Amino acid sequence: MTTYRAPLDDILFAARLAAGASAFEAGGILADLGDGLLEATLNEAAKFAEERLASCYRDGDRIGAIFADGAVTTPPGWKEAYAEWVKGGWNALKADPAYGGLGLPRLLNAACTEIWQGANAAFAICPLLSQSAMEALERAASEELKKTYLAKMVRGEWGATMNLTEPQAGSDLALTRVKARPQADGSYRLFGQKIFITYGEHDLTENIVHLVLARLPDAPPGTQGISLFLAPKFIADSQGRFTRRNDLRCAGIEHKLGIRGSPTCTMAYGDGDGAVAYLVGEENKGLATMFAMMNDARLAVGLQGVGIAERATQQALAYARERLQGRTPESDAPAPILAHPDVKRMALTMTAQTHAARAICYETAASLDRARRQRDPARASEAQRRADLLTPVAKAFSTDIGHEVASLGVQIFGGIGYIEETGAAQVMRDARIAPIYEGTNGIQAIDLVTRKLQRTGSALAREIEDMRAIAAEARFDGASALVDAVADFERTSRFMLKAAPALALAGATPYLRLFALARGGTLLAKGAAQGEARRIAIARFFARNLAVASSGLAREAMEGGAAVIEAEAALHA
Amino acid sequence: MTTYRAPLDDILFAARLAAGASAFEAGGILADLGDGLLEATLNEAAKFAEERLASCYRDGDRIGAIFADGAVTTPPGWKEAYAEWVKGGWNALKADPAYGGLGLPRLLNAACTEIWQGANAAFAICPLLSQSAMEALERAASEELKKTYLAKMVRGEWGATMNLTEPQAGSDLALTRVKARPQADGSYRLFGQKIFITYGEHDLTENIVHLVLARLPDAPPGTQGISLFLAPKFIADSQGRFTRRNDLRCAGIEHKLGIRGSPTCTMAYGDGDGAVAYLVGEENKGLATMFAMMNDARLAVGLQGVGIAERATQQALAYARERLQGRTPESDAPAPILAHPDVKRMALTMTAQTHAARAICYETAASLDRARRQRDPARASEAQRRADLLTPVAKAFSTDIGHEVASLGVQIFGGIGYIEETGAAQVMRDARIAPIYEGTNGIQAIDLVTRKLQRTGSALAREIEDMRAIAAEARFDGASALVDAVADFERTSRFMLKAAPALALAGATPYLRLFALARGGTLLAKGAAQGEARRIAIARFFARNLAVASSGLAREAMEGGAAVIEAEAALHA
Repeated sequence: MTTYRAPLDDILFAARLAAGASAFEAGGILADLGDGLLEATLNEAAKFAEERLASCYRDGDRIGAIFADGAVTTPPGWKEAYAEWVKGGWNALKADPAYGGLGLPRLLNAACTEIWQGANAAFAICPLLSQSAMEALERAASEELKKTYLAKMVRGEWGATMNLTEPQAGSDLALTRVKARPQADGSYRLFGQKIFITYGEHDLTENIVHLVLARLPDAPPGTQGISLFLAPKFIADSQGRFTRRNDLRCAGIEHKLGIRGSPTCTMAYGDGDGAVAYLVGEENKGLATMFAMMNDARLAVGLQGVGIAERATQQALAYARERLQGRTPESDAPAPILAHPDVKRMALTMTAQTHAARAICYETAASLDRARRQRDPARASEAQRRADLLTPVAKAFSTDIGHEVASLGVQIFGGIGYIEETGAAQVMRDARIAPIYEGTNGIQAIDLVTRKLQRTGSALAREIEDMRAIAAEARFDGASALVDAVADFERTSRFMLKAAPALALAGATPYLRLFALARGGTLLAKGAAQGEARRIAIARFFARNLAVASSGLAREAMEGGAAVIEAEAALHA
Repeated sequence: MTTYRAPLDDILFAARLAAGASAFEAGGILADLGDGLLEATLNEAAKFAEERLASCYRDGDRIGAIFADGAVTTPPGWKEAYAEWVKGGWNALKADPAYGGLGLPRLLNAACTEIWQGANAAFAICPLLSQSAMEALERAASEELKKTYLAKMVRGEWGATMNLTEPQAGSDLALTRVKARPQADGSYRLFGQKIFITYGEHDLTENIVHLVLARLPDAPPGTQGISLFLAPKFIADSQGRFTRRNDLRCAGIEHKLGIRGSPTCTMAYGDGDGAVAYLVGEENKGLATMFAMMNDARLAVGLQGVGIAERATQQALAYARERLQGRTPESDAPAPILAHPDVKRMALTMTAQTHAARAICYETAASLDRARRQRDPARASEAQRRADLLTPVAKAFSTDIGHEVASLGVQIFGGIGYIEETGAAQVMRDARIAPIYEGTNGIQAIDLVTRKLQRTGSALAREIEDMRAIAAEARFDGASALVDAVADFERTSRFMLKAAPALALAGATPYLRLFALARGGTLLAKGAAQGEARRIAIARFFARNLAVASSGLAREAMEGGAAVIEAEAALHA
């Protein structure tokens, strides 16, 4: 009953809309995707995802990752799928050509990421994190580290992980305690425990490269004293063969609500002499490297939300078209439940939310490409600031709707949706992690109202200008709701820019949602302006049924903060 | 980590507010709960729930109900807990004294139901359904059936089930196919399969009384041809001992997302000569009996939403008070995460939603008591119509927020909330069924805008009048949001009363939510008027942060319907 088809038409439409059609022409910043390469690559990605990844999605959950004697066995079929993944070169898409990467645009990688995540999120989170680790090494590692490790990672022959969390240090990395001791040879030894390490141990690759946040003996306290290290599972012997086990191990994996095929590991470093590790970047600057790279991972997790939402929507729509229950005013025979307005409303909500989140994520990815490929430095920096501004919205909104859409999917299935064999429940369980990891969605909202609004200069004003122009030109019925939403967003943005910190923090989450409604709704309207009936219907539904929440969100963000701050009494039982 | 304490202060407060203090005085309609009986009973209920039910909540999920060789084994401790339940007389609270019941008010039973559900929803759904079956028999069964079965059910010695669903007949009972063949002795024989039968088989009681919807050979098609039958697991032998197995069996149980301790059974009737069954009420009038009784079950499921939301809130608050992460502007030491405005906002949302849902459910229960106990028939009928109007709101809103609150609970826990051992995920999984069963929440909304608005006469106008008076008198900051919410609800109600059917159906769900915001917010304000700081803070938060969604919901309900109806194109891939 569970299946997934990559929605290539929608993906191509969103990609072209985000980049602008001329970007793909000769001389355009995405010219390397021109001449049909974008389409051909996505076709191949779809084929691989549908045939190799989607087919082992159910067993990934049913059987899950299994831990025994320090080793992790991935679910049936995953090892074979991963080998094909490497063979297909999918791991290298956006990586640096100097280390074997293809150097292709972020936008292409974003579209592919959505497809992998839609087909099998628990599988796809493995390369997602490898790509983040690659990004960190590209940015900050020494040439030697890059030569030894990066090329293997780019091909996907070696896996990689991000080791941030410790029991006492989750969202608050300042509390990191894992210790790094410098050695005479310039290397380090790591001691301590990390938890919630995604794919910290597995059988997909012959080696695993761990990036680990740790503290040097003389490090200043807090976030200014955290360094980033690379510690491979196997280290080189005297002949340079990576056969010697490092002093690090997986101590266990978690029993999770969802993405059960993805091993979430407790990692123990330095049971003995310490895990051999190498510094990435400068001492005590680990967090900066991590955060610079994290924007990328956050967009990728947003795309996980989109992919999962798409899967849930496909599944619920297929069921709603075939399941006959109840009569409509038009006919006396049992009708497909999709004919009932309330079910249709749910299906449309799923569809419209998914399209809006996709549009925001692709817009962010296209901005990252402009930032890297635009020749004019002023425009490149402008694009980078836009990507910075949009990233928390892309991550939080897409993963919030990922779970909401998946839950609506369960609702459309009704009683059978609550039965695990149907698959709708698995999608919902899988979806629930994305609003939590890579920075909780609350932290995304805080990042937006503190750092991003303050540090991206005129990016916000330009964003609002763009939304306003689209809303003003939209011609479908109900487009006035978009004009209202943009006006609500503008008013609330002005409030947020000068609000006392506590009030801004209290209103951050409704503000982010308001941003997403205004941005998502106007991007759908921009697409609708091309005249396709389907896209007009989706944009109209979004405006009339979802963007209309803007006035309430504006009030909540601006007036509700006081009720949060002063509400101490409410929480005393 | 999972525990539950019955929130007695809040429960007593809500009960007194719903009934009016004078109701408990001599001569009042709830005088049988006066002189401390309400408090004493709830104290006992709390003790039983905390000691006997909450303690086996985790194993109920971890181990679940087990099916083998046609028999179901309930989780460890459940049999003992159920025996205590019977001994405590809890099953008999509201039942007819003529058959051993205590005949106590619905309001008391509602408060107890919340407590059982909060402590262990998968367990508590067993007596919940027994009570519904008892209600059906009280209303429609012959004296003989009542004498033989009802007294045993009232004591809880025999369990009971409701057999409605068949594979092709879920929300649409007109498609019921199970056959009933009349016998010469006045009994019937049943043939066919029912699915999703909660506690269709278990080891808690020596006999199980199944109420089954089925069709007689000459029955008219559709809903006018469905009759209600009673088919016990064991039938009487010649000496009147219930030792003979009836021709019915459990063919298997479902593997569900949550409430795993509760066996959800496929029931096979009539493998051989047919299951011996007795008609309840008149031939072909089964659905009417079922629906009359279903309002009661719907309120009870609403209370399941409240109980689960309460449990989730307690758990998340306890964690948010002890977990130290991040700094606040006030201090440089790691702060409890509850000190962070965004976490506080989530905790307040959980608290305020739970209180609002409780207030609506208790108001509904108190109306049912007035309907039954008020001497003046006009006022009794007015109260019944009010209960009819409020029931779909109580069911749908409480179960929707049950899941939303439980999901916020997972979010407050963060990464650890996604780990099953924490327990927050179990609460969310358990919560997810309630918006589906006893009529999906979409069906509740349709019931509201079609039947209830049309058939409850002036109940709606009186409800709005009451809300408006409370909102106008509310004196806390931000109470104007309640005035707005009531005005939005009134406008939208006028629209719904005269809208074309398809538009009313398309707007039904946002309209129900708007009803709940206006009604919940004003009930909280009514409580706040008593001057307690905590209740003022909760009412203020609800008004400013949640009720402000009213204008968007009004637009969605009134203007969004067209986008639903016309959106066919949006759903064609």
